[in-house]
Amino acid sequence: MADIAMEAGVSTATVSKVLNGRTDVAAATRERVARLLKAHSYLAPGVRRARRSGLVDVVIGGLDSPWAVEILRGVEAECAERGTGTVVSLVRGEDARPPSWASLSVQHHSDGVILVTSRITAQQRAQIERAGVALVVIDPVDLPDPDLASVGATNWSGGLSATEHLISLGHRRIAAIGGPQEMLCTQARIDGYRAALERAGMELDRTLIRYGDFRYEGGFQAARELLEQPDRPTAIFAGSDQQAMGVYEAARQAGLSVPADLSVVGFDDLPLCQWLSPPLTTVRQPLEEMGRIAARTLFQLLDGEPLVSPRVELATELRIRLSTAPPSA
Amino acid sequence: MADIAMEAGVSTATVSKVLNGRTDVAAATRERVARLLKAHSYLAPGVRRARRSGLVDVVIGGLDSPWAVEILRGVEAECAERGTGTVVSLVRGEDARPPSWASLSVQHHSDGVILVTSRITAQQRAQIERAGVALVVIDPVDLPDPDLASVGATNWSGGLSATEHLISLGHRRIAAIGGPQEMLCTQARIDGYRAALERAGMELDRTLIRYGDFRYEGGFQAARELLEQPDRPTAIFAGSDQQAMGVYEAARQAGLSVPADLSVVGFDDLPLCQWLSPPLTTVRQPLEEMGRIAARTLFQLLDGEPLVSPRVELATELRIRLSTAPPSA
Repeated sequence: MADIAMEAGVSTATVSKVLNGRTDVAAATRERVARLLKAHSYLAPGVRRARRSGLVDVVIGGLDSPWAVEILRGVEAECAERGTGTVVSLVRGEDARPPSWASLSVQHHSDGVILVTSRITAQQRAQIERAGVALVVIDPVDLPDPDLASVGATNWSGGLSATEHLISLGHRRIAAIGGPQEMLCTQARIDGYRAALERAGMELDRTLIRYGDFRYEGGFQAARELLEQPDRPTAIFAGSDQQAMGVYEAARQAGLSVPADLSVVGFDDLPLCQWLSPPLTTVRQPLEEMGRIAARTLFQLLDGEPLVSPRVELATELRIRLSTAPPSA
Repeated sequence: MADIAMEAGVSTATVSKVLNGRTDVAAATRERVARLLKAHSYLAPGVRRARRSGLVDVVIGGLDSPWAVEILRGVEAECAERGTGTVVSLVRGEDARPPSWASLSVQHHSDGVILVTSRITAQQRAQIERAGVALVVIDPVDLPDPDLASVGATNWSGGLSATEHLISLGHRRIAAIGGPQEMLCTQARIDGYRAALERAGMELDRTLIRYGDFRYEGGFQAARELLEQPDRPTAIFAGSDQQAMGVYEAARQAGLSVPADLSVVGFDDLPLCQWLSPPLTTVRQPLEEMGRIAARTLFQLLDGEPLVSPRVELATELRIRLSTAPPSA
């Protein structure tokens, strides 16, 4: 790295910035450094290895999430095209004992790790760096570290378009259920919801915002409370498709029909949305594509190609199905 | 193998039978051969390797099936406990080009392959044998080859208990939707359904049996036809939970409420059954456990332990939820 810095006439810090896709480097400098990195087939310290194992580790919070499976599909597709095997492992007891995945990836001598929606501690990151493998994170819980390659979706725009759709149908009492409040994606979606209300000149009613985990139970509990309110909402924007399923059941138990009495919008567009009764209007996250991009980013790191940007966000898109309709008079 | 046969005073064919868990060997002979195999740390020809790679390949028809994901979860759990990595790959264009997985597993030098619900051709099997890895199949499409280790569930009993549950609620017009007719598990489930009707002294009405693929569309199409019949069924036993979701939607479109107007039973007990509205009564297949057993069987093969039986079937169990009720008068 020092050699390249000298040859380019810049500091090693600048070379590091270019490697990590930071934007605070002048375009000309950036290009010069990138050309030299390429010419020297430079590999970042973490990924310098005698030879490739042809394996990539995907570490997932839990396979019970259909969400993670969609991402896995994308990673596997991209890896298969490059003749690379996809090793799947789950985080077990993530808070308590040291994560098995870090030692596992060392044992396999995999070339890299794709971490799906987990909190990564400094210690875990150090383990990965010691293991000499590359790392890409998908939808990190916290604000992404600027030195860490990460892939996500445009959550704010998703919250905005879901809420604007409900407003355009004539809804005025629109509730929102978020995932865990500390998660970055939750905050972005709820902010999108607020922005849509604001743009429509509608008052924000804080009693209509709830938080819960991203699963069925989270949606069910929040919807039950919301539907018990005297001035109940006529539409609910759920933080995930699984939460939306909980909203369906809460509506059924309250004797409300979807969409006649209650409109519901989900988030993710899992394959099962089309199979719900009624089929669910939802904000599509391109999960499979996110998995593909994460894998491609990993291969870029392995090939020593500087990243254009350490953080990539793919566009979300509203998919209108049968769970949303104008409110009944 | 010839040495062991000589030492045991039997033919090599008999040794082979013991290795593969065949039952047509006298108990005393079986025990003697098994003891010798163990003593000599014998490894079947396919699995003889200098050393283990610590990797197992799981080859799946498609990750869009929540069914396959449950199995994967079990395999991963068992492998993780043994410090073995789980490499996931999908079958692509299974009919046309040579399957990429066979060459992939060779490239990885994995220790074994777990094949999830696919048709395996003689050529594919030869490829695996040449690669020197062990093979276990989960729920094979065709009648399992007696030389092949396989894991399944008691499909016949599942069909029986689902149908007996509906009969006990008072239903007399009970329809059944199977998966693809050529699949072994479909045949077993439909035979269980027929057996239940027979035991109750009820007439079999062939117009109430349909076949379709195991997905949503298969259930939706079949249910639509069934519900259009002049003397429509009051209950439907679907071949999978995904089919049951299609039945829900066909009922909704026909203006029928589940379970008041139509009882529905699924098959599999995917996690999402609890999240359906109403929660689905279904026949539980212990999918995760099937994955675990498949992995354990693979490790037995790798350790040169003779299998008790090449085919293991785990028990299914009826899970009663809110989608079944007595027929309305």
